[in-house]
Amino acid sequence: MQLATLWNSILALFFNKQIYMKIALAQTNPHIGDFELNTTKIIERIQEARIQGVELIIFPELSLCGYPPRDFLEFDDFIEKCEQSALRIAKECVNISALVGMPTRNDNPKGKPLYNSAVLLQNGKIKDIFNKSLLPNYDIFDEYRYFEPNRSFSILNLNGKRIAVTICEDLWNIGEESLYPSDPMDELIRFSPAFMVNIAASPFNYKQNEIRKEILRRNVQKYNLPLVYVNQVGAQTEVLFDGGSQVVNNTGKCVLEMAYFKEDFQIIDTDYLSKPIESKPAEDIELIHDALVMGIRDYFQKMGFSKAILGLSGGIDSAVVFALAAEALGSENVWGILLPSGFSSDHSILDAEALANNLGAKHNIISIEKAVETFGQTLEPHFKDLPFGLAEENLQARIRAVILMALSNKFGYILLNTSNKSEAAVGYGTLYGDMCGGISVLGDVYKTQVYELAHYINREREIIPVNTITKAPSAELRPNQKDSDSLPDYDILDKILYQYVELRQGPADLIKMGFDANIVKKTLHLVNMNEYKRYQSPPILRVSPKAFGSGRRMPIVAKYLAV
Amino acid sequence: MQLATLWNSILALFFNKQIYMKIALAQTNPHIGDFELNTTKIIERIQEARIQGVELIIFPELSLCGYPPRDFLEFDDFIEKCEQSALRIAKECVNISALVGMPTRNDNPKGKPLYNSAVLLQNGKIKDIFNKSLLPNYDIFDEYRYFEPNRSFSILNLNGKRIAVTICEDLWNIGEESLYPSDPMDELIRFSPAFMVNIAASPFNYKQNEIRKEILRRNVQKYNLPLVYVNQVGAQTEVLFDGGSQVVNNTGKCVLEMAYFKEDFQIIDTDYLSKPIESKPAEDIELIHDALVMGIRDYFQKMGFSKAILGLSGGIDSAVVFALAAEALGSENVWGILLPSGFSSDHSILDAEALANNLGAKHNIISIEKAVETFGQTLEPHFKDLPFGLAEENLQARIRAVILMALSNKFGYILLNTSNKSEAAVGYGTLYGDMCGGISVLGDVYKTQVYELAHYINREREIIPVNTITKAPSAELRPNQKDSDSLPDYDILDKILYQYVELRQGPADLIKMGFDANIVKKTLHLVNMNEYKRYQSPPILRVSPKAFGSGRRMPIVAKYLAV
Repeated sequence: MQLATLWNSILALFFNKQIYMKIALAQTNPHIGDFELNTTKIIERIQEARIQGVELIIFPELSLCGYPPRDFLEFDDFIEKCEQSALRIAKECVNISALVGMPTRNDNPKGKPLYNSAVLLQNGKIKDIFNKSLLPNYDIFDEYRYFEPNRSFSILNLNGKRIAVTICEDLWNIGEESLYPSDPMDELIRFSPAFMVNIAASPFNYKQNEIRKEILRRNVQKYNLPLVYVNQVGAQTEVLFDGGSQVVNNTGKCVLEMAYFKEDFQIIDTDYLSKPIESKPAEDIELIHDALVMGIRDYFQKMGFSKAILGLSGGIDSAVVFALAAEALGSENVWGILLPSGFSSDHSILDAEALANNLGAKHNIISIEKAVETFGQTLEPHFKDLPFGLAEENLQARIRAVILMALSNKFGYILLNTSNKSEAAVGYGTLYGDMCGGISVLGDVYKTQVYELAHYINREREIIPVNTITKAPSAELRPNQKDSDSLPDYDILDKILYQYVELRQGPADLIKMGFDANIVKKTLHLVNMNEYKRYQSPPILRVSPKAFGSGRRMPIVAKYLAV
Repeated sequence: MQLATLWNSILALFFNKQIYMKIALAQTNPHIGDFELNTTKIIERIQEARIQGVELIIFPELSLCGYPPRDFLEFDDFIEKCEQSALRIAKECVNISALVGMPTRNDNPKGKPLYNSAVLLQNGKIKDIFNKSLLPNYDIFDEYRYFEPNRSFSILNLNGKRIAVTICEDLWNIGEESLYPSDPMDELIRFSPAFMVNIAASPFNYKQNEIRKEILRRNVQKYNLPLVYVNQVGAQTEVLFDGGSQVVNNTGKCVLEMAYFKEDFQIIDTDYLSKPIESKPAEDIELIHDALVMGIRDYFQKMGFSKAILGLSGGIDSAVVFALAAEALGSENVWGILLPSGFSSDHSILDAEALANNLGAKHNIISIEKAVETFGQTLEPHFKDLPFGLAEENLQARIRAVILMALSNKFGYILLNTSNKSEAAVGYGTLYGDMCGGISVLGDVYKTQVYELAHYINREREIIPVNTITKAPSAELRPNQKDSDSLPDYDILDKILYQYVELRQGPADLIKMGFDANIVKKTLHLVNMNEYKRYQSPPILRVSPKAFGSGRRMPIVAKYLAV
């Protein structure tokens, strides 16, 4: 093994001398299933690259159909559309080769019907196909649902250069506790490639870029080869892709780092590979901010919408969502509705109005008092003189949702959900009330992080009123209500939730860490018994390594830690 | 291969003579994560079996924790609870061996951390472990998310008898187009087993029992061995398990067939194996009926609820749900609410009242007119004199939901959703309106099947009023509205939906079948553009091979067939 590595290093050195080559990295934001758009985008980049004398242009994983296409992959018609688009693109590949991500068929009747492939397009044809070996199937990933893993390895030969083509996860098995029994690069290195290419659709979370750079660096060092890494960018509903495509030279130094959260197109030739660039890592909260703005913008654009509506409570969650939406869509396209009841405090209305004015966004006040009164009369024959309780609290939240959805339906504004991750975790929200919306902006952001976001939004000037940030959180559904009446302090709650949700620590571990046993028990009970509510939540923009939604799959009728 | 098969047949014949053995099949309904309940249930069956001189008692796949445990498998604490429970059970295994399904750890640092196992418990110990080789990852299945596939094979030796132990999918790769490259029984047959055991958690759909019997028969014939098959029963939220555990002798004849849709416990000794039993297959609609009743009953019981509420429109969907819920929960535990508006016809109220009286169930009339009027006034400053439209239609549906949820919250009745699969498919329903509910009873039943269900419910006496069955379907949200104003006839719509949803046929295939091109285009467009609504739908009791929900995963922001 040691000898083989040495020999490969020598070969690599030899081949590196011959890899002077112009390569284009096209970091695209495809729209799932929009073959016309995706194909046009790819062709435009190819034309641009060809003019500049590029030999090979590289696109992200499944960039032809968009990632993740999910069960559309089960439709033969969808695969045909991919194939037709690939041939259309191949016709543009004259004097240039393109490496494009797309599904291809497995001709063997045994095994899954598809591969997740990088296809080499040249002179009107699919010249070569490289299939993904390691199929991620954790969190939001479902690749083994559709794809057969590659088991036979080959090298890309292009104008006498040998290139090892891998797809995303293929490089991620490097480490001690690895999910797959073998590493595709251990096979490909035998072909003595000059460099590695990895096409990816690697989803964002606020720790991902750090981890990704480390993983890429480890591969470069292990195989002693430069690496060209091309990642998807953009939001596909809840799954966000940050881009950050890069080139790492064989000393492990980054020599090209592409844009985050937007499309980018860069050409390198291998002269570059010796000039390391310096980039300072962004703070978590800045990444979360940028990801959420992109998430809102892409959701609206890809759904064909332009305008958003939301309820403004005067509290911090709706304030942060309002500000993010104004940044994503333009303040002229967001509409804030204040929906006061008899329990709303004066400052709530003043704070919400100040926010709207700071943003220069449209806002209206619509009192829910008459509706509360009417439902009170309608329900009186049944409720009689039973005491005010949860039903009456939820009623207010649901009346607000009815009004917001009526305005949404009437004027084509899409309702933004403003629940945060702490609330979503413990079920502190009203189903069909404040849990409504087309997309949840903060559902993966803990309350304590919402405060950080507010400070970040205010970094240059006061957009979110200071009073909104400093006052005690309250749902204002009964007199003098505070969140802390029902829940542990967010400082503690969020720490427990992080350990339980993100790190899957059990009750014994949590107590061992020093958290109060009763609070732990209560918190985990709340998380698990509220699975039914989260099941009906809007999709949640995913910014953490473990968001509620498609990446966290829990049974609803379960008794685990729910007693 | 031919010779080997012959040799195995001879061996099997030889061993069959020696397999006189008393075996118990325990078809249990576990509650996911309720270790106390599941363990107690298993121990009780073991005690019962031991008294009757049983050598081996067999429980379903993952019966210790319940199937599917989903991401609870990622919690070390959850796995520990499984291990502790297994040891508790093992202590009861004196003079008897138990084969129990549970997750076990993969000691190899490479690969997924768990196996899906059948463990042999004997004298206080885990005596042997057999791991699942073929991990289903389609439809509702996510097994490759958690489990490493087994690659090393061994035989269960019990008191001199050799038994080939497989787990569910392990026997399902038999056929021409198979999902996996190899078959575990091809390995296990080399050990010359006397018979096969398969422990399963094989979900119900109305075609499943037929297919299952055929698959089991094919295995028996291929390997020329008798088969003992033990399946889980009961509902785990939306995923329904029908049981139907069975013993097939080595001529392919069923010699024991256990109950459907309820727990069962049977003891065989191998004398049985020559006496085939006759059972006539149930009609699809009877199976769907029984599955839905079990689904409702288990949802309520496992969530700790007893009482259901629903809105009665006088239409067929709510009538069928009301009747099914009365059967599942007792008519004293279901509460029907009639919520007429100005657009409700007289017959709607009469029909709904007749239904409630036929069932002997509580019902009330709560007019929504006052609430409609109040919201009209509240919204007037914004709506001004814009014409009546979708917003006003949805408003009525949402007001009804607010009232139903208020009663639900106040009195602890759980709201049943009454949308059918045809509506859910084309988005003919109001989000946060008639799409509300804890569980969707008919969301996997096409409108044309709802009529069949109504007739089946009326098979002995008129429960659902004839007028409810014969009148034209209408949402009654505007004057003289009919479903057929907006949608193709259900006869045609349901056929197109079946081809598209269940069979994944594309537009060209559908047109080739003779469906009108415009209707096809409109229908597929509606299905795909309404993914956002279905995302927020309650869990849907799954009775077909392809239900909306966890078994059908679609991107929301997608443009495929949505233009």
